[in-house]
Amino acid sequence: MHYDPPEWGTLQHIEQARLALPGEVVSPPLRQLDGVGLMCENLQVTGAYKVRAICHIMNLKARGLGDKGLALASSGNFAVALAWAGRHYGVPVTAVMMRRSHPWKVERVKAWGGQVVFSGDSTEERTAALHALRDQGIHIVDHLNDPQVLVGHATLGLDLAPARPRQVVIPASTGGLLVATSLALKQIDPLTRIVGVQPGGANAMVDSLRNGELRRLEKVVTECDALTANRPGDLPWELAQQWVDDMVEVSEEAVRDTVRYLVEEAKLVVEPGGAAGLAAYRSGQIPEQEGTWVVLSGGNIAPARLAEWLSEGPPE
Amino acid sequence: MHYDPPEWGTLQHIEQARLALPGEVVSPPLRQLDGVGLMCENLQVTGAYKVRAICHIMNLKARGLGDKGLALASSGNFAVALAWAGRHYGVPVTAVMMRRSHPWKVERVKAWGGQVVFSGDSTEERTAALHALRDQGIHIVDHLNDPQVLVGHATLGLDLAPARPRQVVIPASTGGLLVATSLALKQIDPLTRIVGVQPGGANAMVDSLRNGELRRLEKVVTECDALTANRPGDLPWELAQQWVDDMVEVSEEAVRDTVRYLVEEAKLVVEPGGAAGLAAYRSGQIPEQEGTWVVLSGGNIAPARLAEWLSEGPPE
Repeated sequence: MHYDPPEWGTLQHIEQARLALPGEVVSPPLRQLDGVGLMCENLQVTGAYKVRAICHIMNLKARGLGDKGLALASSGNFAVALAWAGRHYGVPVTAVMMRRSHPWKVERVKAWGGQVVFSGDSTEERTAALHALRDQGIHIVDHLNDPQVLVGHATLGLDLAPARPRQVVIPASTGGLLVATSLALKQIDPLTRIVGVQPGGANAMVDSLRNGELRRLEKVVTECDALTANRPGDLPWELAQQWVDDMVEVSEEAVRDTVRYLVEEAKLVVEPGGAAGLAAYRSGQIPEQEGTWVVLSGGNIAPARLAEWLSEGPPE
Repeated sequence: MHYDPPEWGTLQHIEQARLALPGEVVSPPLRQLDGVGLMCENLQVTGAYKVRAICHIMNLKARGLGDKGLALASSGNFAVALAWAGRHYGVPVTAVMMRRSHPWKVERVKAWGGQVVFSGDSTEERTAALHALRDQGIHIVDHLNDPQVLVGHATLGLDLAPARPRQVVIPASTGGLLVATSLALKQIDPLTRIVGVQPGGANAMVDSLRNGELRRLEKVVTECDALTANRPGDLPWELAQQWVDDMVEVSEEAVRDTVRYLVEEAKLVVEPGGAAGLAAYRSGQIPEQEGTWVVLSGGNIAPARLAEWLSEGPPE
């Protein structure tokens, strides 16, 4: 099998993007736990992988942004990364967040000096809010369609490549990280199996792939606040049909159990969405295979919420 | 200034010990947070640095142990490491634990197949229980006096050395890790400043160094269940006078606050004793200096306890 990358997404582009990331954006620890590899992007600067893409965008555009700066729409982690990068590059930044964005994440954005604008929860409402900012002269990042966002995400795949993964399990919302990681890894080894995971109550990519057409969910119900997309991104959707081997759904209970398990056994704080991939693997929905790596994509869970989950009792 | 290592503790001995550790005993991630370096031994196998020493002892002795195996006394983390190593090397092991050892740690030892014997809480009572096991033909490890335990601990210093630390902050109980880390690092650079930290209510090494003689505490009061020694170890005490630059005390409140801070800002689960060094640094008791590294020595905190601490509110 052979995978032809889009012109903008060759290994050369991805590797150049990776090498240009700020020193603070770390190649996170790769660890083994109970026979599965953990890629700890929760230990990444700003607590999630999103900082890779936003720094790549800054590297491309920072000098041309002018004093209006940069904006994007995010349920939380992308906004936190944007705020960090704004401070790092000295660029004013604005995050369009959702009414249901977790207050703890909103506070993080403000703490790093980012502006916050709230919009309705649907992808359409968020896009409209973003376009209003564009009309004010702010440069907007369209994370559902901008190939450079995927190039930034794909740097994660290159950081995982030295572990020679044979199967990689990745939480998915709009599907950007999922297809981007595959873009990097399948160019290196086309046999690397790429599996996406979504909560049962936020399964837009699962549903779309199952039906062979882009599906939009009427309602999203999940505690995984990083995985609340009601539809795949256009560009991720276009790529997913070729670059993703399987999509599975995970239960909310399995996610909670895995968040507790990671605290107790791995000493890692991982947010629900970040733990969704491991939760699916632990609940037996993904074939056991040597060389399986799970991306723990983020760790931004409010302490009070983590406390509540930990109080519920030990993992089985 | 020049430091003469004891004959058993040269860099050559320590490096040989380090290279012989099992592959599962990792060189843990070195991270920067708010200008201070974190050596994440909480992410070590068994969740604490102790596994280094016990594996070194196993490497030296496993083949000569016979079917009675190995025993040592521990408030918790050393016992967990012993149980892991017992399984790894196929050696029966027994841990003398304390009545006040945290039940969660006791359960961990049993889960890995270790035997547990309980004793009173004082160093003397624990030693007596250990001698009773020796009379049954079990090989005992005297962690207060065995130089090879310090050689095992010292491997941590060599894993930190590539970061070129100028000041290293280390939690202390009997003082073994403290002097052992210094043993490694001051042979490489005698100007590396080594600072030990103890809770105010378990300050036997602080008190001993202040008075120039080994002091025994009548009572130990701290939530840092890994730092409950009521006296320094004999060998650590002998070395501390030359190899430790400063000892400071930390408050229980600073420790609690730092455990919360590490969850929220670093996405790391660190037990109270493991966070004591960073707590002292954050509360301003240790000179700020570029190149400061803090050893997060363990992460074995019961989830229910962590939940309680996280519920108390955010760091200031």
